[in-house]
Amino acid sequence: MPADQASVRRANLSLVLRHLREHGPRSRAAVAAGTGLNKTTVTSLVAELQARGLVREGGPQHEGAVGRPGLALALRGSTVAALGVEVNVDYIASFATDLGGRILIDRRLSFDAMGSSPEHTLAHLAGVIKDAAGDLDGLGVTLAGITIAVPGLVDVGRGRVGVAPNLGWHDVPIVGHLRRSGLPEVPITVDNDANLAALAEYTSGVAAGTPDLVCLTGEVGVGGGIITGGRLLGGADGFAGEVGHIMVDPAGERCGCGRVGCWETKVGLAELVRAVTPGHAYRTHLRDPEERLAEIEQRLDAGDPRAAGAVAEVARWLGRGAAILVNLLNPRVIVLGGYFARLAGLLIPLAAAELGRVGMSDPARRCRFAASDLGFGAASRGAAGVVVERVLSDPTTVPIRAAPPLHQPHGRR
Amino acid sequence: MPADQASVRRANLSLVLRHLREHGPRSRAAVAAGTGLNKTTVTSLVAELQARGLVREGGPQHEGAVGRPGLALALRGSTVAALGVEVNVDYIASFATDLGGRILIDRRLSFDAMGSSPEHTLAHLAGVIKDAAGDLDGLGVTLAGITIAVPGLVDVGRGRVGVAPNLGWHDVPIVGHLRRSGLPEVPITVDNDANLAALAEYTSGVAAGTPDLVCLTGEVGVGGGIITGGRLLGGADGFAGEVGHIMVDPAGERCGCGRVGCWETKVGLAELVRAVTPGHAYRTHLRDPEERLAEIEQRLDAGDPRAAGAVAEVARWLGRGAAILVNLLNPRVIVLGGYFARLAGLLIPLAAAELGRVGMSDPARRCRFAASDLGFGAASRGAAGVVVERVLSDPTTVPIRAAPPLHQPHGRR
Repeated sequence: MPADQASVRRANLSLVLRHLREHGPRSRAAVAAGTGLNKTTVTSLVAELQARGLVREGGPQHEGAVGRPGLALALRGSTVAALGVEVNVDYIASFATDLGGRILIDRRLSFDAMGSSPEHTLAHLAGVIKDAAGDLDGLGVTLAGITIAVPGLVDVGRGRVGVAPNLGWHDVPIVGHLRRSGLPEVPITVDNDANLAALAEYTSGVAAGTPDLVCLTGEVGVGGGIITGGRLLGGADGFAGEVGHIMVDPAGERCGCGRVGCWETKVGLAELVRAVTPGHAYRTHLRDPEERLAEIEQRLDAGDPRAAGAVAEVARWLGRGAAILVNLLNPRVIVLGGYFARLAGLLIPLAAAELGRVGMSDPARRCRFAASDLGFGAASRGAAGVVVERVLSDPTTVPIRAAPPLHQPHGRR
Repeated sequence: MPADQASVRRANLSLVLRHLREHGPRSRAAVAAGTGLNKTTVTSLVAELQARGLVREGGPQHEGAVGRPGLALALRGSTVAALGVEVNVDYIASFATDLGGRILIDRRLSFDAMGSSPEHTLAHLAGVIKDAAGDLDGLGVTLAGITIAVPGLVDVGRGRVGVAPNLGWHDVPIVGHLRRSGLPEVPITVDNDANLAALAEYTSGVAAGTPDLVCLTGEVGVGGGIITGGRLLGGADGFAGEVGHIMVDPAGERCGCGRVGCWETKVGLAELVRAVTPGHAYRTHLRDPEERLAEIEQRLDAGDPRAAGAVAEVARWLGRGAAILVNLLNPRVIVLGGYFARLAGLLIPLAAAELGRVGMSDPARRCRFAASDLGFGAASRGAAGVVVERVLSDPTTVPIRAAPPLHQPHGRR
């Protein structure tokens, strides 16, 4: 098949699959009418989608269908899974859904990436992926692809992490490395954690559908994902949104990255932990961020003035950094992820006041903070979403599992 | 004509006009073949474009045409003019081109907008526009529209300036005001100066065609226009790119806007003038920016250490602010406009070194500074470009000047 004919076929497979996903079960005739494709083409496309396990026949007829019902086709969403995995400073998160959006895996394991070599972290990551793949296999679903979220600058095309300061990674060819670890033979890609979290927020979070938003990850590092005009802002190399190392205070403290006064040194989780519990420096006591937050919340509940002061200081700097984002990008919503979301009730009023004071008044007035409800799983959820999107855009990435079934024309039933 | 039929007609008029602009003089048959429209439709569209004075018949046949030449059609670019006007702190600039891109007006007049009331400035602006319209009339071209560039937050849809800090404007309904000033009855729009300058740089400047660039205006105020993925980044309200009032130094000086440590207080022209010639505060001695720069350059040439130190300090803060843009937006080029371009030879090496020190290394390494060659006219040039684009997108905005000529079919010549 010539290249252009193959790409037309891919586009039409995608069209039929998205149509069934959006409109629910319906007959071939209804698919043909709804997509503008002719019936012969639809029949051939459906046969291929069935062979790839993406569409099934005999689903319940869609309500409101008129006339003699044909054999209804439906998205076989439950047979294909998308896996997203996030490596962060102190945990590895996995999230898997089927094509219908059902959540199959949503877990987070503590892991000290900061204190581990890249090789050790990658070996551990490969183990987490194998476990997830095994679980999906046990559920009888086919893994369609894997996307890895990393808090750093990612060369998406080459599958490499350029630099991930908080992981201590420099030029790590993560996809090539995982390929050699005996993982399932499916497409593997890597992307920036905050960009993936922003996609998750845009598709299914508290600001879903807002075309201009910024998503901030609140971890040890602080990343940003920018959606502008309904699209992810990548920049020339996909490196955009690196908010954590913006210099907000030339007279500030030295950051882990070697620079001075980075935003992260004001609002990162490590800084908050240090300020609330000076005896417990972040590196020396490995714990999950949820545990650390529980301790901070306990102290806040107990009226510890040091804890309250530290949170207020974070809120003030959150507002100041947000003012930069608002002046430059004019977003409608700034979604607070990670630990920011957990402390949102305390952070947002103070941060909003500071944003109003420091930001340009018109865009600041029209922008609100919103606490993410996706928790620490936003990036892995967004990563799984990228895989789902890839399958919907190119169903041929899912292998053929059976010979295409012979189609029974309606007249011969 | 029903609304949708009218919009199809507009789109087809636009298609034919752009086709002739891009491909040069050619026959109706060639236009039909090149656009996919049928010949009868092309004949009708061409008749309307001729009546609007946008297309003429009998131009030289395009080289390389084969077969019996038809009557060649050509863009009548020289009969329609687009006018862009920029109001800034110490000047009003006008720029006019015809549709073919020939420059008809390019001038800048000193004007103390800072020391004038909005009413006085608007009256002066109306006078400048009337003069330009008179000159265009004298050249025998039809004015198709006017776009005004303003250094502030603009509500494009309502034709209002929300706030222009350096002009002292708050909520000025500029388009409505100009409409009542007896100007030509053509479409008038208003937009942010830096956004318009960015469009000019993207279409015809030193970084023309670079899909990810930031353009900085270097005036008393510092504005930013952001092109990302080949599109102007507007944000939710069109307010994006307000770089001048980003707080870069919490311990810095108070800005004219009332905030502290704005980038403008470090790199704006007023700050440089103050640092080089402390006796000549900006407001007290009205002069054109070119004159001020000539004085600064003279002192630099004479080896004045105060001038050299002041320029070095501006360069350092230019690099620091650029690091914010680079971390957030990952542009390939930062175009320096206005006075930055005039001093680029001194500013760029120091600013680039500071960007390398403060910015994330991967995006910083892949981003370069470039001096604009559009001078102080970039925003007015971009404004004229917006008018040209509007005519090309909707030729019906140019009035019909004559009854459509009867078309002579080729066979009857």
